[in-house]
Amino acid sequence: MVTSRGVRHDSMRARNLAVVLGAIHRSGPHTRAALAELTGLTKTTVSSLVADLLEAGVVTERGVVRGGERGRPGVAVSLSGHRVATLGLEINVDYLAACVVDLTRTVRLRRTRPADNRNSDPAHLLQELRGLAKETIDDAGAAGLRVIGAALAVPGTVEGETLRSAPHLGWRDIRVAGLVDLPFAIDNEANLAALGELWFGARETDFLYVSGEIGVGAGLVVAGSLFRGTFGLAGELGHVVVVPDGPACRCGGRGCLEVYAGQDTLLGALDSVSALVSRLESGDPRALETCARAGHALGVALTSAVHLLDPGMIVLGGVFAPLFPWLEGPVADGLGARLAHMRDSPPALVVSKIGPDAAVLGAAGMIIQRIIAEPAEVLGL
Amino acid sequence: MVTSRGVRHDSMRARNLAVVLGAIHRSGPHTRAALAELTGLTKTTVSSLVADLLEAGVVTERGVVRGGERGRPGVAVSLSGHRVATLGLEINVDYLAACVVDLTRTVRLRRTRPADNRNSDPAHLLQELRGLAKETIDDAGAAGLRVIGAALAVPGTVEGETLRSAPHLGWRDIRVAGLVDLPFAIDNEANLAALGELWFGARETDFLYVSGEIGVGAGLVVAGSLFRGTFGLAGELGHVVVVPDGPACRCGGRGCLEVYAGQDTLLGALDSVSALVSRLESGDPRALETCARAGHALGVALTSAVHLLDPGMIVLGGVFAPLFPWLEGPVADGLGARLAHMRDSPPALVVSKIGPDAAVLGAAGMIIQRIIAEPAEVLGL
Repeated sequence: MVTSRGVRHDSMRARNLAVVLGAIHRSGPHTRAALAELTGLTKTTVSSLVADLLEAGVVTERGVVRGGERGRPGVAVSLSGHRVATLGLEINVDYLAACVVDLTRTVRLRRTRPADNRNSDPAHLLQELRGLAKETIDDAGAAGLRVIGAALAVPGTVEGETLRSAPHLGWRDIRVAGLVDLPFAIDNEANLAALGELWFGARETDFLYVSGEIGVGAGLVVAGSLFRGTFGLAGELGHVVVVPDGPACRCGGRGCLEVYAGQDTLLGALDSVSALVSRLESGDPRALETCARAGHALGVALTSAVHLLDPGMIVLGGVFAPLFPWLEGPVADGLGARLAHMRDSPPALVVSKIGPDAAVLGAAGMIIQRIIAEPAEVLGL
Repeated sequence: MVTSRGVRHDSMRARNLAVVLGAIHRSGPHTRAALAELTGLTKTTVSSLVADLLEAGVVTERGVVRGGERGRPGVAVSLSGHRVATLGLEINVDYLAACVVDLTRTVRLRRTRPADNRNSDPAHLLQELRGLAKETIDDAGAAGLRVIGAALAVPGTVEGETLRSAPHLGWRDIRVAGLVDLPFAIDNEANLAALGELWFGARETDFLYVSGEIGVGAGLVVAGSLFRGTFGLAGELGHVVVVPDGPACRCGGRGCLEVYAGQDTLLGALDSVSALVSRLESGDPRALETCARAGHALGVALTSAVHLLDPGMIVLGGVFAPLFPWLEGPVADGLGARLAHMRDSPPALVVSKIGPDAAVLGAAGMIIQRIIAEPAEVLGL
């Protein structure tokens, strides 16, 4: 690993704080002696760093354990779930959501407000979201948790703090600032849902998360990191070409995956995914055929995605999660047949473990990740 | 940037060697004073590190220049092209190639042996390649260059030092070891061609290199690094689905890009790319139609690739380079029409600057990159 600057003592403390907190996060609780062994730092240095982390409320001491190679008893240090937390927010086409997650990744608060946000007024909707955020932060405060950062998941493309394009909301170039008086980030819902699946779904470090919503998106996680591409626009699985001269898509193309497998196509005249699931369970031929066609299209698009992205596995999420029993067969058949000679076996195909919460949890988790990665910067240590 | 170990003095020297060599490589020549300013290291430390690099033959001193903020004259240190070099090797379906490149990325030797390597005997072909490598290393030695590492580009998938599958050679699970008595690496030709384009084609840091050969592959470079996916199999553009029920492809799928745009399809009964170019120049209708169809298929597959990978630009290489005047129109039209509503403009479409040399140069360049990134480890400093 080559940094562009040489290593001098003045930057070492910030870096070592991150190393110690990272070790506690990955494999804690640990005694100070065990942390010294794990990190290669001296016990004196570790003790001083741990004192700072205790003071900031990100770690806590718990009972006496055996620690270190020599097995001497010591006080174990672990992440604290009691003082510091982060806020996740989500604008979905069908609802607004908020959650508060503590540093141990336990969900402490969770709120959803159903709404029809298609072609909505940005100022009005953001005002509502601001209210939801404030209420949630206040309730967290009443539970003794200080919220120290927030992130927002949106169904569209993002650049900095600006929502560039969210076609299903009917928004273009909306700057989202001043939503909360805290460090703040905004990101695409499929990206954050992929990270939510990574951090809260107990996933391995490598998978393609497929987000089935009104729009179809994907987030690729490789070695525990999200792949974003050059302009942050990677993972637009919904517009992979399935049939080059197929029906027109809102993107300007033809025969995109979204035309065959987007929520609007899946539901048709039905008003909810649970209505569709009922039809499927009762063996309704039209519902079964719609799902089979969507599954076939997903199999074609995912074949192209596997060839280009080489994911560790494929996780179907969003509305594809409750439809998994009907999608699994056609998708797996398509992947199996098309990838047969190129790989020993196609990537495993599994269903999301956290369903519709993935994006809002990923948003809260992103801020936790920043605290773990850069505690000195985020906490001002 | 979080490392898993704390920073102690014993690892600092190796890291700082890389920092200083990296600065010389990126923006040199520099005086020791300028290097101290650039890296944040003390002048004493820089002088001691530069002494080691001089001794190893990777840098050299040249005339007196003005250096550093205060403009005092000093001796400039630059990469040395005179003592250390690397060897690139390539097994192509149509030829064997070798090149020697010095640390300044100047090509010092270049050899190609035409051959028909389809369904060839691995032991025999590797023996020939070993001979070519030895000759080339000896000639480099006669020119005063010590070759300190080699890499091999192959038209197939690679795992460690094993060529897993090279369908056009007819090889499967061939271990390539002992080819040279040097640090050695082996990689897919599209990956190495992408890196060749990056290092020798004076490209920006973000692009998708498309390798048109008997097989069609691609290598994605993001922020100057190759994206490899989870199993090292990313970038198989040739098997992106263009027409889901199209003609069967050797991969087990149907209607893959390779069926429409692979070299065999492009050439038909012609025996060389230059024969095809002659036909195209003379306005032969069948040749023009084949190229138009290949360009259309490339436009569809690249649309899917842009949505999934989000490349900075698209570079057409291999046999697509001489055919660029006939491919550019249909490919650009396809990308423009299909990406219209999703992006301000599609990624720029350009032709490779280094043509058929890309892969073998990328192979030599990969070892140079290792020297620059980890001089202490590679050179034993």
